[in-house]
Amino acid sequence: MSANSLMQLAGQLSSGAVKVVDLTQVLGPDTPVIQLPEPFANSPAFKSEVISEFDDGGPAWYWNQISCGEHTGTHFDAPGHWISGKEYNDGTTDTIDVNNLVGPACVMDFSKESAENNDFLLEPEHIKAWEAEHGSIEAGSWVLMRTDWSKREGADFLNADENGPHTPGPSEAAIKYLLEERNIMGWGVETVGTDAGAAGGFETPFPAHTLMHGANKYGLASLNNLDQLPPKGAIIIAPPLKIENGSGSPLRVLALVES
Amino acid sequence: MSANSLMQLAGQLSSGAVKVVDLTQVLGPDTPVIQLPEPFANSPAFKSEVISEFDDGGPAWYWNQISCGEHTGTHFDAPGHWISGKEYNDGTTDTIDVNNLVGPACVMDFSKESAENNDFLLEPEHIKAWEAEHGSIEAGSWVLMRTDWSKREGADFLNADENGPHTPGPSEAAIKYLLEERNIMGWGVETVGTDAGAAGGFETPFPAHTLMHGANKYGLASLNNLDQLPPKGAIIIAPPLKIENGSGSPLRVLALVES
Ligand SMILES: [Mn+2]
Ligand SMILES: [Mn+2]
Repeated sequence: MSANSLMQLAGQLSSGAVKVVDLTQVLGPDTPVIQLPEPFANSPAFKSEVISEFDDGGPAWYWNQISCGEHTGTHFDAPGHWISGKEYNDGTTDTIDVNNLVGPACVMDFSKESAENNDFLLEPEHIKAWEAEHGSIEAGSWVLMRTDWSKREGADFLNADENGPHTPGPSEAAIKYLLEERNIMGWGVETVGTDAGAAGGFETPFPAHTLMHGANKYGLASLNNLDQLPPKGAIIIAPPLKIENGSGSPLRVLALVES
Repeated sequence: MSANSLMQLAGQLSSGAVKVVDLTQVLGPDTPVIQLPEPFANSPAFKSEVISEFDDGGPAWYWNQISCGEHTGTHFDAPGHWISGKEYNDGTTDTIDVNNLVGPACVMDFSKESAENNDFLLEPEHIKAWEAEHGSIEAGSWVLMRTDWSKREGADFLNADENGPHTPGPSEAAIKYLLEERNIMGWGVETVGTDAGAAGGFETPFPAHTLMHGANKYGLASLNNLDQLPPKGAIIIAPPLKIENGSGSPLRVLALVES
């Protein structure tokens, strides 16, 4: 066995000392999709149609045609998704630096707060309290906000009423802190989008989108299984499809965790 | 800094001592798709349609609807894609064990042989010669056949004439050796499918599909940049979309390499 550190990782994966955690929702016709109010255009749901299934069209093989919006289910937001990030020449799914797609994760558990207040907003003081307990967020980290929202289903997941959706997310000040004081790589959530449900009405609307993408940084939405990650110590792998000029994409998000 | 080995990896990624190599083709309308002869059903090409692009439908955001076959561009073949693997209850994109999606890669360079003979077949003796030079293939490895086929474009990539496609791939004996003697996890190629162009006429038709999937193992097609990987020492990350009952999917394939 080589002393090479990647070969050590291979050995740990093989022995089970490092395990892979799936942070991804199932992608199917029932996968929740964000619902925008009039007059905005909405994304279609995921659809799958059989091409052949052990039949005359393909006696030994089964395959499907699929369609969906780029922002469906567990998905990646590229800088070019937002007007603040549209000028970056490495800001779409085909041009981003792949070195940015694998990195350390900081997982902040605000599930209790989010259960008590569905409109819970993460503020800089919450992050600073987390850092006081777990250590400072390193530059280049992915910060993941655990809310246990992924345990909800159907209408409870989108959680909208006549005033719009009620889902937790970050304040503008929280995103500014993470970008300006910590220089993070990405921001990930369990909810349908990276911003709070009420974020369209904030002084800076949709701060996770506006500020993160304005800084050429990334977002991840509809993550699962954040309760299986340690506060620090996991490596997240978040590789979007390499769609030509893509604004984002559904993806399989994995985490490496020491067991 | 923690002594934790995943945190060492995070440090190596941050310092550039470990870099990420993108093994993925761009996914767009020109992405080559396998062409099956009559009477078999074929897969549509990739298509993207704008939902909104900084316009009335979405003044601050850009996004698209996408559609394609599950086996388009750089893609993953799940066991359930093939009749020999259809009974596995962990054989579709939503049920496979995610621990199998990250592992060591063995990269075998047969680019010279494939240039000289477009129908080049990899045989057990080629693999044994590679092992004599680089060491035995460990169980659980992904074996990737470099042919430089990814440097071809358009018709030269599919390389078909009136007798069908002429593209390199493995013999039945080679796949048997890799499965039975080495217990590999996956088989990956640069060509449009995991089997040789002529493999429909083999004694066991499509042995990479029939035998690999029959053993609940995986395939990767249309890989890029295999010439940037060492023969041994890279870790491959191959996470398909978590499509409900999916036979495979386009995906972003990454490799971790020590620089
Ligand atoms: Mn999105
Ligand atoms: Mn395929």
